[in-house]
Amino acid sequence: MRNDGREPNALRPVTMTRRYIKRAEGSVLIEVGDTRVICTATVENKVPPFLRNANQGWVTAEYGMLPRSTDTRMQREASKGKLSGRTQEIQRLIGRSLRSVVDLKKLGERTIWIDCDVIQADGGTRTASITGACIALFDALTYMRQNREIDCMPLKDFVAATSVGIVNGKALLDLNYLEDSKAEVDMNVVMTGSGKFVEIQGTAEEDPFSAEQMQEMIALAKTGIEQLIKVQRTALGETLFNKYL
Amino acid sequence: MRNDGREPNALRPVTMTRRYIKRAEGSVLIEVGDTRVICTATVENKVPPFLRNANQGWVTAEYGMLPRSTDTRMQREASKGKLSGRTQEIQRLIGRSLRSVVDLKKLGERTIWIDCDVIQADGGTRTASITGACIALFDALTYMRQNREIDCMPLKDFVAATSVGIVNGKALLDLNYLEDSKAEVDMNVVMTGSGKFVEIQGTAEEDPFSAEQMQEMIALAKTGIEQLIKVQRTALGETLFNKYL
Amino acid sequence: MRNDGREPNALRPVTMTRRYIKRAEGSVLIEVGDTRVICTATVENKVPPFLRNANQGWVTAEYGMLPRSTDTRMQREASKGKLSGRTQEIQRLIGRSLRSVVDLKKLGERTIWIDCDVIQADGGTRTASITGACIALFDALTYMRQNREIDCMPLKDFVAATSVGIVNGKALLDLNYLEDSKAEVDMNVVMTGSGKFVEIQGTAEEDPFSAEQMQEMIALAKTGIEQLIKVQRTALGETLFNKYL
Amino acid sequence: MRNDGREPNALRPVTMTRRYIKRAEGSVLIEVGDTRVICTATVENKVPPFLRNANQGWVTAEYGMLPRSTDTRMQREASKGKLSGRTQEIQRLIGRSLRSVVDLKKLGERTIWIDCDVIQADGGTRTASITGACIALFDALTYMRQNREIDCMPLKDFVAATSVGIVNGKALLDLNYLEDSKAEVDMNVVMTGSGKFVEIQGTAEEDPFSAEQMQEMIALAKTGIEQLIKVQRTALGETLFNKYL
Amino acid sequence: MRNDGREPNALRPVTMTRRYIKRAEGSVLIEVGDTRVICTATVENKVPPFLRNANQGWVTAEYGMLPRSTDTRMQREASKGKLSGRTQEIQRLIGRSLRSVVDLKKLGERTIWIDCDVIQADGGTRTASITGACIALFDALTYMRQNREIDCMPLKDFVAATSVGIVNGKALLDLNYLEDSKAEVDMNVVMTGSGKFVEIQGTAEEDPFSAEQMQEMIALAKTGIEQLIKVQRTALGETLFNKYL
Amino acid sequence: MRNDGREPNALRPVTMTRRYIKRAEGSVLIEVGDTRVICTATVENKVPPFLRNANQGWVTAEYGMLPRSTDTRMQREASKGKLSGRTQEIQRLIGRSLRSVVDLKKLGERTIWIDCDVIQADGGTRTASITGACIALFDALTYMRQNREIDCMPLKDFVAATSVGIVNGKALLDLNYLEDSKAEVDMNVVMTGSGKFVEIQGTAEEDPFSAEQMQEMIALAKTGIEQLIKVQRTALGETLFNKYL
Repeated sequence: MRNDGREPNALRPVTMTRRYIKRAEGSVLIEVGDTRVICTATVENKVPPFLRNANQGWVTAEYGMLPRSTDTRMQREASKGKLSGRTQEIQRLIGRSLRSVVDLKKLGERTIWIDCDVIQADGGTRTASITGACIALFDALTYMRQNREIDCMPLKDFVAATSVGIVNGKALLDLNYLEDSKAEVDMNVVMTGSGKFVEIQGTAEEDPFSAEQMQEMIALAKTGIEQLIKVQRTALGETLFNKYL
Repeated sequence: MRNDGREPNALRPVTMTRRYIKRAEGSVLIEVGDTRVICTATVENKVPPFLRNANQGWVTAEYGMLPRSTDTRMQREASKGKLSGRTQEIQRLIGRSLRSVVDLKKLGERTIWIDCDVIQADGGTRTASITGACIALFDALTYMRQNREIDCMPLKDFVAATSVGIVNGKALLDLNYLEDSKAEVDMNVVMTGSGKFVEIQGTAEEDPFSAEQMQEMIALAKTGIEQLIKVQRTALGETLFNKYL
Repeated sequence: MRNDGREPNALRPVTMTRRYIKRAEGSVLIEVGDTRVICTATVENKVPPFLRNANQGWVTAEYGMLPRSTDTRMQREASKGKLSGRTQEIQRLIGRSLRSVVDLKKLGERTIWIDCDVIQADGGTRTASITGACIALFDALTYMRQNREIDCMPLKDFVAATSVGIVNGKALLDLNYLEDSKAEVDMNVVMTGSGKFVEIQGTAEEDPFSAEQMQEMIALAKTGIEQLIKVQRTALGETLFNKYL
Repeated sequence: MRNDGREPNALRPVTMTRRYIKRAEGSVLIEVGDTRVICTATVENKVPPFLRNANQGWVTAEYGMLPRSTDTRMQREASKGKLSGRTQEIQRLIGRSLRSVVDLKKLGERTIWIDCDVIQADGGTRTASITGACIALFDALTYMRQNREIDCMPLKDFVAATSVGIVNGKALLDLNYLEDSKAEVDMNVVMTGSGKFVEIQGTAEEDPFSAEQMQEMIALAKTGIEQLIKVQRTALGETLFNKYL
Repeated sequence: MRNDGREPNALRPVTMTRRYIKRAEGSVLIEVGDTRVICTATVENKVPPFLRNANQGWVTAEYGMLPRSTDTRMQREASKGKLSGRTQEIQRLIGRSLRSVVDLKKLGERTIWIDCDVIQADGGTRTASITGACIALFDALTYMRQNREIDCMPLKDFVAATSVGIVNGKALLDLNYLEDSKAEVDMNVVMTGSGKFVEIQGTAEEDPFSAEQMQEMIALAKTGIEQLIKVQRTALGETLFNKYL
Repeated sequence: MRNDGREPNALRPVTMTRRYIKRAEGSVLIEVGDTRVICTATVENKVPPFLRNANQGWVTAEYGMLPRSTDTRMQREASKGKLSGRTQEIQRLIGRSLRSVVDLKKLGERTIWIDCDVIQADGGTRTASITGACIALFDALTYMRQNREIDCMPLKDFVAATSVGIVNGKALLDLNYLEDSKAEVDMNVVMTGSGKFVEIQGTAEEDPFSAEQMQEMIALAKTGIEQLIKVQRTALGETLFNKYL
């Protein structure tokens, strides 16, 4: 039995509140258990320098944690004057994950800025960020269509993510912070609505893991992500995207 | 008539949600109209170097804005690698304001970290931060008393703040963003529950102002702050502090 | 009696030496008691990015202290690699104060850089900076008129500043360092030649202050600033500006 | 046929030159095709702050590229004044990979600093760094044993790494730079001498990948790493470690 | 004839004003033609970490220029957030030059901080800094003797510096800014009162120079420095040091 | 007898390996005793901002040390986030030295970036960098001629450098690290193939030096540099440059 009473293959309760921030083109408050992340999507009418005249758009992500989102107060990265390696890794992961389901040509010369800010952290903040940001991104793209900035929806699929791990020798889905901090193996998996992999990052925190353990974790992750994508579909309701996909 | 229908001397609706962040010793979500700020108070069992062996505590504040709290996305200060002058000014203001109502000797050799993070900004974020942080601070001090870390409540009074300004030649209370951006004069006032001034910062954005205008603004601010302190009292309800003061 | 023998409402001796730095368009050494500040004004033929094509000019200020201007040597901000919050606050204050008396439209697309460098510090360096910089600015604008870069004088009024405070319960004008370091309340006031307020910043260092105390401090500041503006007028002598105003 | 004539499942030629830097406790020049990395291991007699009094040691890694190791000159990170996100990701990966095969308790309160500096880059610099650093680490540990600083060898196993990817729909082992830059999927795999996984990082650069593709890539990686570990064994020759394992 | 009417072997007028900054242990305003530098010496009762328990003292120097000390306003290094290479080179040069005439053992575990701040620049600021700082250092050491912090004077000799150069093929002493900016060769020479070299830095700005030219420049520098040391002796007057040496 | 058995006027063995880095336009591994430096020259088709439209090219240099090139591991400057004063001094020296033998007009609007990275350090790394970079620069310029980017060779002469010093009162050529660390005087000399001086930097580390000692050191340096230029000529073999000069 897990410390919060879940079965090994159970996700924590997940909710997504759309339009949480009034002025953003897209915004979602995602809650996965006690983990809460505000995801916003902002449309900017230009592309980064390396894409100038490339006739395509871009999706990029930034990630932050409020200092007291964690058990012990963390120093603010703005005060330290630099982003930690962990923050940069997460930002790159979120950006890559979302770009994998966007047709950048159809965006035109625009950048979508995804901001994921963790209000309360209890494990799985990077995977919750991806899952929530997918919906904020959808809403921003819908906003662009409604304003006739784009002709068709550049989103090709849903994308969602979860963590899995080996704790006390046992594979578990959707680790909370306590589980994560004592996991022997920690794996983040990002998948699309059509069941393909976007990213797999598995790390042996102490002891290397076997091929069998890897298969078991991937299978668990797949189950979890399928459920998360159902929650996404429900959040969107009768929107164009659900009809379209 | 103001752009949101208020009378010149009317505050926007104010709410305070205590214990908004589970793990913080004190936390409040304050909403003043569309301005929303998460305030937390964290207890640390040491003091900054300049107070070592001074036999007293310290209260310090940090302030941040989510990149999309504003109408147009702002660059993240953590990405820029430094705090703007504005952020530092606000941090110093919040810290000074709260210290003015705390008996630092009674804190013992401890630091209370106040974090004010703006989730949505519509003018008056620094004054909302002070008003909300006062309650988060109260809750953290109560937590310390319940854990017998301190013997008596080191808070001497309530403290709250609001902005006033001259817009189109007319003095207005509690400016929202639209009003603030076209104000001729902008003044932030911080007062205690007993009606004394902690801080007055009045700035002529374009044209200098007269002594009469100053008096009028200060009178408006006083009315507003008295109401805010009532909201604080209501939020605390039947707590020790209300009894005590 | 004050530690330097002054009456409560007496300024320290003030002198202003114009053209102190040979090559600057305007430069003043201002001495207020033992506080000495070099103020220069530099004309640059472009505006900051946020004013491009706005058909107006800009006035901006920078402030620094020599490491040994103070009693104990301070670390050089250039060595620390960043400006302190205090320095940025003062820079913003000086800039705002001077802009309040300049008609930016008449400047054309030019920036006036004000540099205030404290050679020796004995309290009141930010207010001495404003008072001295006003004259350096005047000289730079005169230089521009003489070179026919502008047609008329864009300066609308004099501006000067002083500090007041409550020390041992008593309101004092123009605090020196010793007084400033033990003041219960510290207030900086910036006023124009026509007696209007540009900026009021009053801070309770320890105990909140009453409305009566505020009135008393403001009255003292007014007297002081009127004298400072007389010193400015004398420094300018038979110049166009004195005739013009 | 690949652009350098290799079969899909063929590694590039690999050589390791031990004791390449005279004064380092351990040092290796590893060459994998045209990729050349200098790996050194330095012993320091203290641990980072977070391990003080934890009665164990630490292994940490830093990674850099000479500005002209790449086709086009890169700006030096020391000149830019900060490490890129990519560099930090790689540093963390190398550190984790090596720690997974070290018994940190047996190290005592010491830190081993691994430095991997890329002299020439042609794809796979992070995996070559891990493979080479394992041998530099072995030599530094042997040096410590010979100086009787430790009683037994704290290395539990070999560790080596390679990249695999999908290029034009086909799974390939050990991508060179040209292949890497057009890969649809890119995966780095770190394994031990006993065939267990330490790290798997698979990323869809454009299109998500299927479970079958993942299996195929992992199988290829396994073959490659087995060969790399043979090269490591050969490099070590008749040393204690080969006898011991 | 030179642009300011001097003979090739003539120094500009030199004056030194001692005790220019009230609170510093030693302070000098040195003027060499239009070049003006404030030099202060501050005593600190500790040594840098690399000298802890080495039973000796240290002398270190910092150098800065006011933004408008130059013809065109320079950006403030504190605003740029870092010291230029030129500033660091000069700081190291001043520090080495002064240390060469101090018996660091006799200082005890103390650091003397030399600050050289250029108020107005017209060539030769680094050499004027050394010449002025020698006297500020003397005054700080005298202050220490008078306070019985040290028993004997740790200064072993005078030290002074000047620049020489080749301009239009001709060797000139003590270059002003205009000469310096068109010099083919530029050389800074630091010598002691007893005529020995502390530092020679000769640089061909465009064309390499011959051995004969080098000899000529060194002879000129020697003459100049002998005169500067006479000025230093006069500035000190009937002090212990003049008697002592 | 010196610690490595050399005569006072003997250089250490010198070798230069051209084309050490495959993709650079010019590259040399220079070894001077145990000092090893990789020098590359990169051609960039633009000039720095201060030379825009000046109808000439530029040569600039960067210098770095691998963390374990030295006896004790040094912290990486990229990790510290800034270049030390020493690094900047060396970068400026290398750049100036190379520019003194290049006809910048003939380069066209191009920048040659020289990178000198110390792989192993045993004294004299800055002088070895200059000596090696001269050949890398030659190769890059030859590459440009072969690609018809320039019509004639912009290199006017060879340039090479060595260090000399006074150790135990005796003048020595080409100091190794052990000698350098106990030298009383340390001098770096840069000369051209035609025997002229480009740069002389002599520093008394402890005691000032006499005119005679200076002459002796310069004579030694001259002998050494003549030999280094012979090694350069040999390295180039039957190239255009040898014919041309």
